[in-house]
Amino acid sequence: MARKTGRRPGKPDTRAAILAAAREAFAERGFDGTSIRAIATGAGVDPALVHHYFGTKEQLFLETVQVPIDPREFVPEVLAGDTAELGIRLLRVFLRVWDSPVSAAATALLRSAMSNDWSLRLLREFLVTQILRRLIGQLDVDPAERALRASLVASQMVGLAMVRYIIKVEPLASAPAGVVAAAIAPTVQRYLTGDLSGDSSR
Amino acid sequence: MARKTGRRPGKPDTRAAILAAAREAFAERGFDGTSIRAIATGAGVDPALVHHYFGTKEQLFLETVQVPIDPREFVPEVLAGDTAELGIRLLRVFLRVWDSPVSAAATALLRSAMSNDWSLRLLREFLVTQILRRLIGQLDVDPAERALRASLVASQMVGLAMVRYIIKVEPLASAPAGVVAAAIAPTVQRYLTGDLSGDSSR
Repeated sequence: MARKTGRRPGKPDTRAAILAAAREAFAERGFDGTSIRAIATGAGVDPALVHHYFGTKEQLFLETVQVPIDPREFVPEVLAGDTAELGIRLLRVFLRVWDSPVSAAATALLRSAMSNDWSLRLLREFLVTQILRRLIGQLDVDPAERALRASLVASQMVGLAMVRYIIKVEPLASAPAGVVAAAIAPTVQRYLTGDLSGDSSR
Repeated sequence: MARKTGRRPGKPDTRAAILAAAREAFAERGFDGTSIRAIATGAGVDPALVHHYFGTKEQLFLETVQVPIDPREFVPEVLAGDTAELGIRLLRVFLRVWDSPVSAAATALLRSAMSNDWSLRLLREFLVTQILRRLIGQLDVDPAERALRASLVASQMVGLAMVRYIIKVEPLASAPAGVVAAAIAPTVQRYLTGDLSGDSSR
């Protein structure tokens, strides 16, 4: 689950220049609105060099955000299996990651994003393009509702991270993962596949 | 709904010393563990002077946290009425406050709490003793479950504040309040009064 470190080292100055240009571009124009070519121009290097050091745009973006987990690993795990149990699988994977040593880095990332607008925008891009889009993209729900469902899931999961790991409100902060997962999974399940109109009879 | 400003001015140095001592005491020992007497000692003044400038311990605490809303006003509004509609009332009041100009101050408070451990502890004390305790205290639920229910409600509401107003994930960031309230109210209602075991047949 932990993100691999130790990529090809490359020339420190060039790598750093590319990363700085990438951070600026992704924060300003978003993941979708940014091209490797634009980042290369910003860094004053050839696009081939960006690919050489960082691979794909997605790999470069993950490097830029410095998120300690790789959604390309855990999102498929959540999606694999019965659709009716998406909620509980998401909670289990989320709690396994956050209850591990990875949470220190994740907490630091979330806290630093709150004090810096650029970091906040990168965090939003990460959430939307790397987690929510993957999570919701293959669901059999009205495409017009997908983005709202994804952002509702985000509201519960970001809030769980805040209240359990950062603000540390008891007893949620130290409740067993199984209790937390059972209590919150139906919320996530409804946001992903259930009725959003507030009509409890549906 | 907005917090009243312009209390008795008092001598600036004394007021400031009391506030600083109060902030330290509340952050270190919590709201319940802090007495007016201890704050007075910390500030090197007579306890009567603390009461004179700030009124009750609760009033002093609210002054210390600098929250732009007064839970003594909005919590009773949420509690008044049918228990089965607590969730939707909480969402409506929450969205009315956060969709107003008050949200700038609330956002600043939440963001600053993330970069400073003392502010974070004060925020937790505020959440727990001023909002959650009031909200859950009069509910007809198993007392042993009250604190867990309160912290689950906090996880959804803090997450909503984060995703709608701070990280600004669309479409939740700009969805009409009615849509957001309808989608999230059943979550809050279940956390307050429903089944938490994850057994959907109950």
